[in-house]
Amino acid sequence: MAASTALLTDHYELTMLQAALADGAAGRRCTFEVFARRLPEGRRYGVVAGTARVLDAIRDFRFDPDTLDHLRATAQLDQRTLEYLRDYRFTGDVDGYTEGELYFPGSPLLTVTGTFAEAVVLETVVLSILNHDCAIASAAARMVTAARDRRLIEMGSRRTHEDAAVAAARAAYLAGFDATSNLQAGADHGIPTTGTSAHAFTLLHDTEADAFRAQVAALGVGTTLLVDTFDITQGIRTAVEVAGPELGAVRIDSGDLSVLAVQARRQLDDLGCPGTRIVVSGDLDEFALAALAAAPVDGYGVGTSLVTGSGAPTAGLVYKLVDVDGRPVAKRSTSKNTHGGRKIAVRRHRATGTATEEVLGTDVAPPEEPHDRPLQIPMIRGGELVAGLDDLDASREHLRRALVTLPWDGLALSRGEPAIPTTVLPPPRREGTA
Amino acid sequence: MAASTALLTDHYELTMLQAALADGAAGRRCTFEVFARRLPEGRRYGVVAGTARVLDAIRDFRFDPDTLDHLRATAQLDQRTLEYLRDYRFTGDVDGYTEGELYFPGSPLLTVTGTFAEAVVLETVVLSILNHDCAIASAAARMVTAARDRRLIEMGSRRTHEDAAVAAARAAYLAGFDATSNLQAGADHGIPTTGTSAHAFTLLHDTEADAFRAQVAALGVGTTLLVDTFDITQGIRTAVEVAGPELGAVRIDSGDLSVLAVQARRQLDDLGCPGTRIVVSGDLDEFALAALAAAPVDGYGVGTSLVTGSGAPTAGLVYKLVDVDGRPVAKRSTSKNTHGGRKIAVRRHRATGTATEEVLGTDVAPPEEPHDRPLQIPMIRGGELVAGLDDLDASREHLRRALVTLPWDGLALSRGEPAIPTTVLPPPRREGTA
Repeated sequence: MAASTALLTDHYELTMLQAALADGAAGRRCTFEVFARRLPEGRRYGVVAGTARVLDAIRDFRFDPDTLDHLRATAQLDQRTLEYLRDYRFTGDVDGYTEGELYFPGSPLLTVTGTFAEAVVLETVVLSILNHDCAIASAAARMVTAARDRRLIEMGSRRTHEDAAVAAARAAYLAGFDATSNLQAGADHGIPTTGTSAHAFTLLHDTEADAFRAQVAALGVGTTLLVDTFDITQGIRTAVEVAGPELGAVRIDSGDLSVLAVQARRQLDDLGCPGTRIVVSGDLDEFALAALAAAPVDGYGVGTSLVTGSGAPTAGLVYKLVDVDGRPVAKRSTSKNTHGGRKIAVRRHRATGTATEEVLGTDVAPPEEPHDRPLQIPMIRGGELVAGLDDLDASREHLRRALVTLPWDGLALSRGEPAIPTTVLPPPRREGTA
Repeated sequence: MAASTALLTDHYELTMLQAALADGAAGRRCTFEVFARRLPEGRRYGVVAGTARVLDAIRDFRFDPDTLDHLRATAQLDQRTLEYLRDYRFTGDVDGYTEGELYFPGSPLLTVTGTFAEAVVLETVVLSILNHDCAIASAAARMVTAARDRRLIEMGSRRTHEDAAVAAARAAYLAGFDATSNLQAGADHGIPTTGTSAHAFTLLHDTEADAFRAQVAALGVGTTLLVDTFDITQGIRTAVEVAGPELGAVRIDSGDLSVLAVQARRQLDDLGCPGTRIVVSGDLDEFALAALAAAPVDGYGVGTSLVTGSGAPTAGLVYKLVDVDGRPVAKRSTSKNTHGGRKIAVRRHRATGTATEEVLGTDVAPPEEPHDRPLQIPMIRGGELVAGLDDLDASREHLRRALVTLPWDGLALSRGEPAIPTTVLPPPRREGTA
């Protein structure tokens, strides 16, 4: 595992660096923007997540002697380039959307300004983090909407890369999940962790009743007993026999959950356990959660679909050079929706608070209108991190409030257009260039 | 980032441990198996990858004092459990399929034997690694088949979690990719890295010719020039003017690649550059690669679809308890294809070498037939890693040979059934239990 983030980098960034150092272009003042050309198919909004991790990665982007030796031996870099990397430290500025903010096609999530040399080498690590974390948070936010106010537990660690799992738990919590199964996410990010038992625990024992007795003895009657290892009806009966009417919850992890939840609720009520909660899990996604809205379920465990972005495992964000020494630049291509120049973003709203439009001024802020909200905040100034940007609870609350501003159909799970349109304003006409 | 792998763990593994330590079941001798109930939809085989990373993770699964303090404060574990974790060290056995081996539904990729306590806590980290790496390698192998003998470069780091990117590069190389853009994968796994330049490098300069001159000056005429920033025909003309007839390659990263490749080839030939190669990239997957088979392309860069498993970002592997003190165990459920008892796996073949069947004996090896190949090898014995299991080039070669044994339709990209069926043999009748 990398101690520094410096090699979480595509080789071509260093070859470009070398060529630019040689011809002097490396020192040109550049602005790169991170944005999505489009949202994943049918999605109506994206959720910004991972920015605090990006800022840490920029801080930790240093080339130590071992790394330089490795690059000298394998990457065919000249002495000037190796010396540049040895002294590397990002000294520029970063602005961006706060974590928990919504984004739409073209929204400048992150703006990196500095010399070409210092900004170009950050492309890969910046995109890796944001493409992953935004994809997970965007999927998670839809699940939170679909779950209404029921408890949501993230339990997908086993279905994604072991370190991605920690970041996924963070993104899910930011999006409104209540807890995670992932202990490292608890340690790294202060997220509540939870869990009780798996089918293996029941199978380990000679009988289901033995297993339940062991769990209740260790964790108390308030625990959650997993009742579907053999027969669910018998499992619930045994659970109540062992734990009594104060049993905290039962979990069902397989089968037709909407039918089973109704049966389980009736059985628990009949057994005198009206306070025992029902938790369900097993291949749930936002659509399955929505379908369970009318079922007597108290909480959900969500795994695979969360950590794989529910069909959109990457956010498709790009890191594009938009300005060189004050000159707007863009790839000329009819199919790629790219605009040169640095964007200043505001979100327009009605007087009621409903968002109506994402407006991007080029080089200057868009003309002010009532109920505008500026979207970018300073994150790094002269290489120094601005304090206070890694506050997960604040990001969570920010998202909760932002979702309320969407037009009524913006929260629909069905496929549709972005909830609000994005308008890019042209740069102001320069004096003397009529 | 975690120094130890001990917290890459679901909370419930530790609550199960606590309950099992309290009632004495923790010491029962258990066997857990890792397998896929089914392949991702339409896939015909899976590729084992990540095993060497799993073995390292088991070795590094230790709870240091800080971790124990964190768990004491947050995970409601009793003193006995914390002391067990303090002294934790896996002392059991692991057997499994070698990296680069093919697998099918039910194949026991990894078999972990030890006390319940020592084996249950490994579930999450084992599955995280294998579910990710197998998903990537399985997708990558199809791309390698589709690319035939053309050079394949993995360049998807920016579209996945920053550490997952390194593992993805490793899995892609194992599956037959030639190189990666990811420098950390080069440093960690000795994979060749490559890269030249992005559109940003062209946009940085005042003209495309300036950019090409800078790149050629730094990297030589054998470099690859990216010619689609503005107009491809003009870009190729400029590239040849700058680099001369010895220009190594041009890269096209957008547009209809099959049409553009033909035009570029004709233009390069007309300009007297028959040796200049054409590399294409941009949203390629195995189907796009297959469609380019007749186009005059020399190499491919593949990104997003590789690191997201081309529609199957997780392999869906599970870690199931199958044996407790010699007693086969299994969850009773009609829908889940689970068999109790420890499996001994062989692959049957015709005399010609074509694979015909995956046969799993329960508790004992299947009856021997000619041309059987045993599939499991010892990986950990009494807690000690067997040496020599992390040889990427050997795994690569193993896969290459294994793919040749598949029936003719096993390599088809179209949706289909697993290339060979899996048969699970019942356990032998025990003496005296007629």
